[in-house]
Amino acid sequence: SINSNRLLDRLQELGQMGVDNDKKRTRLAASDTDKAGRDLLVIWMKEAGLEVEIDRIGNILGVWYGAENRKKAPLLLGSHIDTVINAGMYDGCYGVLAGLEVITTLKEKGFMPTRPIAVAAFTNEEGVRYQPDMMGSLVYAGGLSVDDALSAIGTDGTRLGKELERIGYAGTKEPGFLKPHVYIELHIEQGPILDKLGVPIGAVENLQGITWQRITIEGVANHAGTTPTEMRRDAGLAAARVITYLRDRANNSNGSTVATVGTIDFKPNAVNVIPSMATFTVDLRNPNEQRLQEEEQALAGYLKELAASEGVSITSEQLVRFNPVTFDQTIVKLIEQVASDHGLQSTRMTSVAGHDAQMIARICPTAMIFVPSIDGISHNPKEYTKDLDLILGANVLLNVVSQLTGK
Amino acid sequence: SINSNRLLDRLQELGQMGVDNDKKRTRLAASDTDKAGRDLLVIWMKEAGLEVEIDRIGNILGVWYGAENRKKAPLLLGSHIDTVINAGMYDGCYGVLAGLEVITTLKEKGFMPTRPIAVAAFTNEEGVRYQPDMMGSLVYAGGLSVDDALSAIGTDGTRLGKELERIGYAGTKEPGFLKPHVYIELHIEQGPILDKLGVPIGAVENLQGITWQRITIEGVANHAGTTPTEMRRDAGLAAARVITYLRDRANNSNGSTVATVGTIDFKPNAVNVIPSMATFTVDLRNPNEQRLQEEEQALAGYLKELAASEGVSITSEQLVRFNPVTFDQTIVKLIEQVASDHGLQSTRMTSVAGHDAQMIARICPTAMIFVPSIDGISHNPKEYTKDLDLILGANVLLNVVSQLTGK
Ligand SMILES: NC(=O)NCCC(=O)O
Ligand SMILES: NC(=O)NCCC(=O)O
Repeated sequence: SINSNRLLDRLQELGQMGVDNDKKRTRLAASDTDKAGRDLLVIWMKEAGLEVEIDRIGNILGVWYGAENRKKAPLLLGSHIDTVINAGMYDGCYGVLAGLEVITTLKEKGFMPTRPIAVAAFTNEEGVRYQPDMMGSLVYAGGLSVDDALSAIGTDGTRLGKELERIGYAGTKEPGFLKPHVYIELHIEQGPILDKLGVPIGAVENLQGITWQRITIEGVANHAGTTPTEMRRDAGLAAARVITYLRDRANNSNGSTVATVGTIDFKPNAVNVIPSMATFTVDLRNPNEQRLQEEEQALAGYLKELAASEGVSITSEQLVRFNPVTFDQTIVKLIEQVASDHGLQSTRMTSVAGHDAQMIARICPTAMIFVPSIDGISHNPKEYTKDLDLILGANVLLNVVSQLTGK
Repeated sequence: SINSNRLLDRLQELGQMGVDNDKKRTRLAASDTDKAGRDLLVIWMKEAGLEVEIDRIGNILGVWYGAENRKKAPLLLGSHIDTVINAGMYDGCYGVLAGLEVITTLKEKGFMPTRPIAVAAFTNEEGVRYQPDMMGSLVYAGGLSVDDALSAIGTDGTRLGKELERIGYAGTKEPGFLKPHVYIELHIEQGPILDKLGVPIGAVENLQGITWQRITIEGVANHAGTTPTEMRRDAGLAAARVITYLRDRANNSNGSTVATVGTIDFKPNAVNVIPSMATFTVDLRNPNEQRLQEEEQALAGYLKELAASEGVSITSEQLVRFNPVTFDQTIVKLIEQVASDHGLQSTRMTSVAGHDAQMIARICPTAMIFVPSIDGISHNPKEYTKDLDLILGANVLLNVVSQLTGK
């Protein structure tokens, strides 16, 4: 089994990177705090004797080429170490550090793999600063050109390419330079299912679709006191109507659709001025592609009606659109088998969060292992997974990897 | 009659202060652009031979003490020259510059007033940067202590007292040092009534009540993909529900209540994070004090229900609370009389915007004169009043002033 203390200590240590004076942890992609996390990871990869490669989109790969088989396609493990704003400690980091831990353990035990084993930390999985999310893995899988990705403009007006240069992580390798044989990502569930069931291992068999839009509503600025209600063309009110409409749709979807408006901005943003402009993001998800399209169409129809009824104009820009993905059945079954060999209950499940595995599944057989998140809290500093569950998950991963690369 | 060209030219010239590279005009109270406007006004006051006094809250008074009666309480004219964000050219400036024009004309014509005549530009009428609005006139009328007002913290984190010092308008006179005999404020209507009626003069007989609150909703940040709808405690959704609730109330008020949410902020403001906090302002108005209280109570009741149904906590901070005000009937009648003497139609009306007159009415007989706003647009760069209407209004003011101060 893996070295539990090393894994848990490193999770804590990496978790301290990007903690501010208010004790809030934020490591947005390609920021100074992301650099601090990356530097630490690279040190640990080198300590483990891995060859560290940085590609042009800033993905970090630590490769154990093994003794005699360095030309074979590697088994790839990984996840990401960037975070949302005021984040938890486990999202992404667990998969990267557990991957590193598995390789280190195998090396230490004198394991002789049939192919290289590598661990990746993909750039900008969260998509909070630059869109789309899962960007590093998407580029790695060839779904987005490196140059387009590097030109992404962040919420703070920065350009990703410049920021990667600034923090010293604009590498030279072409993304995808190592085509994986198989990709496996270990991750906290982030949702409540495993915790509620009391089951320690999720064998993730598919992943729901995600669409992100930025919606801009233009109304007419006018005086808060003098403008009769029927003359108002209030961009802020129209935005509020969209938010409640989306919630109604989610409520009527039998739990299959989730909808979130996470960001908003009014202009001119003055207490006694009717907003002339409201800009906000919509995050819509459904595990079924057809249902996701229905949601998108319903929203588009509603925006049209609303523009007419409120006398505003509405435009929408697609930031992200990822189809639902089905993982490789053979690997999913192997995960179940290994869990059962360890005497652990497992359940097949759908990932309702986006993950790098969703992108890498385009280029190789892929699956994910989930461990429970207490109360299903994530993207929140209260995100928590018990040490024991972290260790169980990493040991399942260790065993899956050794079965896939053993003689 | 007044010198029309001088008035119109000065409106244009003052209107250029604070215009940025995008042609947007913003002169927030005690900002650098406000200083530029103030400096210009002071030059013009001095050119007209007025004694310029600055009080501790930064109000600028230009006083014509006249020949023999400098101890008598002055007739006071005035308004403000601060603006909202991306503002029009007339709101406030018209009243200040027309007041200055009236005094200058009377001086030039050798008029001998029975008492001093003064014109004031009150600090921070708009209330966009510092709350409450009408702050300079409120302090002048004794409704708020100078020290409390100077301690106000702005939307940008600045302290008003420091900013007034910085721009050189922290005066030494005690606000209220000249107790007015009568106050008259000429202003653009900012609403659509006069324009719709085709009537050039409004004799304003009362002013509606205003309440401003800052509402803070605390929910729980969580993952946009993994959090089932029924587990969400979404501060942003709750804010949207308040915005649509307020519109429903306004719709059901027979046009008497208006409600505006002009500012909003989500935290952490990330596309895939359910908002943990939403902060927004509510501007509620009704001409009837009892109805205004009913609106406040209804909102408070709704916030309680909402907190329970959405699993969020809600707090509300009062930023502004001004009762409806009734103006002096004698002056209102005089305005009607003078309009009729000039062969102009006039109508009695309610001001549905807040004005410095609402504050100064606490210490002396007060009234307002309105001129039409094309399409009722204000707090918008498209705010517009025809030159002819501006001139008619200023001439009515001239005549009202000469009747009130003539022998
Ligand atoms: N797992 C995770 O939090 N990914 C971020 C992308 C998303 O699902 O919003
Ligand atoms: N007249 C005017 O725009 N005053 C600002 C205060 C308010 O009514 O909101």
